[in-house]
Amino acid sequence: MSTAPAHGSFALGLDFGGTKVEAALIDATGTLFAPSRFRAPTGPSSSSAELEASVTAVVTQAVAALPNDAPLAGVGIGTAGPITVASGVISPLNVPAWRDYPLADLVRSLVPNVPVRLRLDGLCITLAEHWVGAGQGVDNLMGMIVSTGVGGGLILGGRTITGPSGNAGHIGHVEVSGYDDPCACGGRGCLEAIASGPKTVAWARRQGWTGTTGEELAAAHAAGDDIAVRAVQRSGEALGHAIASATNLVDLDLVAIGGGFSHVSPALFDAARRTIAERTGFEFATRVRLAHSALSGEGPLIGAAALIHRASMVP
Amino acid sequence: MSTAPAHGSFALGLDFGGTKVEAALIDATGTLFAPSRFRAPTGPSSSSAELEASVTAVVTQAVAALPNDAPLAGVGIGTAGPITVASGVISPLNVPAWRDYPLADLVRSLVPNVPVRLRLDGLCITLAEHWVGAGQGVDNLMGMIVSTGVGGGLILGGRTITGPSGNAGHIGHVEVSGYDDPCACGGRGCLEAIASGPKTVAWARRQGWTGTTGEELAAAHAAGDDIAVRAVQRSGEALGHAIASATNLVDLDLVAIGGGFSHVSPALFDAARRTIAERTGFEFATRVRLAHSALSGEGPLIGAAALIHRASMVP
Repeated sequence: MSTAPAHGSFALGLDFGGTKVEAALIDATGTLFAPSRFRAPTGPSSSSAELEASVTAVVTQAVAALPNDAPLAGVGIGTAGPITVASGVISPLNVPAWRDYPLADLVRSLVPNVPVRLRLDGLCITLAEHWVGAGQGVDNLMGMIVSTGVGGGLILGGRTITGPSGNAGHIGHVEVSGYDDPCACGGRGCLEAIASGPKTVAWARRQGWTGTTGEELAAAHAAGDDIAVRAVQRSGEALGHAIASATNLVDLDLVAIGGGFSHVSPALFDAARRTIAERTGFEFATRVRLAHSALSGEGPLIGAAALIHRASMVP
Repeated sequence: MSTAPAHGSFALGLDFGGTKVEAALIDATGTLFAPSRFRAPTGPSSSSAELEASVTAVVTQAVAALPNDAPLAGVGIGTAGPITVASGVISPLNVPAWRDYPLADLVRSLVPNVPVRLRLDGLCITLAEHWVGAGQGVDNLMGMIVSTGVGGGLILGGRTITGPSGNAGHIGHVEVSGYDDPCACGGRGCLEAIASGPKTVAWARRQGWTGTTGEELAAAHAAGDDIAVRAVQRSGEALGHAIASATNLVDLDLVAIGGGFSHVSPALFDAARRTIAERTGFEFATRVRLAHSALSGEGPLIGAAALIHRASMVP
């Protein structure tokens, strides 16, 4: 059995987040080579040396899984932010040991002589939706994750929007009119402060609901609990407002939404769609479509590899 | 005296708005050839035939001003929206006689055998700021007009963002948290519903101020009138909120702001800048700069001509 990629060279995808770091080889069709996938812990209490050891381990293991005759086209890194794209340094909010840490340089030292590109994880997820997910063929696309936080990325006119600092795509910190929930970013009324899983749960608890997790909220919603119904509706409406603002600003065809909390109930998307339809008379804005992410758990790794395999989309 | 353009060919710039339509020849350095500038009325009560006659008049007059030996590189049209960019049809909100009107086709019939390109006026103004105005050398730029309405356009990564329908740049319909002023678009809490000249005046009047125009509000502000001071502060804060949301989403270097009401008082920009600084802990977002437009009244025409002369920025 050959283990060389069926379609051209491999790229190494690296996904660095607040809980774990993963690496894997992905071929030019967006297929992950399963034996090359490795993960290691990160976390808010890790030291910088521990984080370096985790990254080194998964990158080294994934490279070692490269079949003898297979070329490596490069390394794509998707990471929690903020980042500084020009220098490849990262300051992930939930990983305090790394502030302006040169992650791209670390990876270059581990995998010399190939291109290494680093972007926000939200951008990589959006690239994966465009490549193998819900956004195939859609050249004006916002990818979103609704989970512990709310993040995203943009493809406009068939090209990724990175921004001069690398931080474009922070849909979680677009404001929503009529709300003033305080946000961890320092603002008020940010989408993330309203519609993330934990913030939706917190709002329900303030109304008297006694559960503590998004899963419990989903179960309560399915059982018809009044507070759970109102909590999901409130977060769905906030999603719709923020997506309407984003569409008014950048004129989107599709928003592909993933993340654990996006599955809390179909009522979440229903409320978002209804809000967009009611919110504005602009036909160009109301035509935006919402879709569930079509990515598996491999999405962030495939998206990171897209920084190499789909480099022409990433100026 | 030669009247041939000093720098290459001319482009014809056409600016179609709710009050007037203008045309002029602009050379490849962004200099307007003054003898070629013509204007004619439009307005909400004009018939479609009257609007066609006005466009025909100014285009024909501007073309007739072309020196004998000067080539015409094409026609760029900046127009009030919404538009449908693929077909070149326009439905300007304040010109009800034209709904899905084929303005690009009309112009092609008047000026055959050259490229004709049509975009939103907000995008053209942004191109002009980038070419000859406050945004020179800035490749991540939002141009804004704060006047009767609030509009704008985006240049990201050195390329204009048009959007699939052509309507990207509607910063006036990005929401502002904590406000719920009703908007003409059907939404609530849109920037335009708060911070346009007429909406700022209307808010001041609801507090008991007795003036009726932006000019009177500027004078009252200069005289220290308490309501005028609070009205300008409220609109400036809303500007800051919306710019912060836009920067979180697309990562801007500079926002260049023009339009009559942007000059109501230096306090307007002061409040916007203070709001951005206080609103968020994201360094990438707080570093965005606000600048007054450096365009003269020629800006919209120069920006329309940039659709031809700077075509590589306009995919």
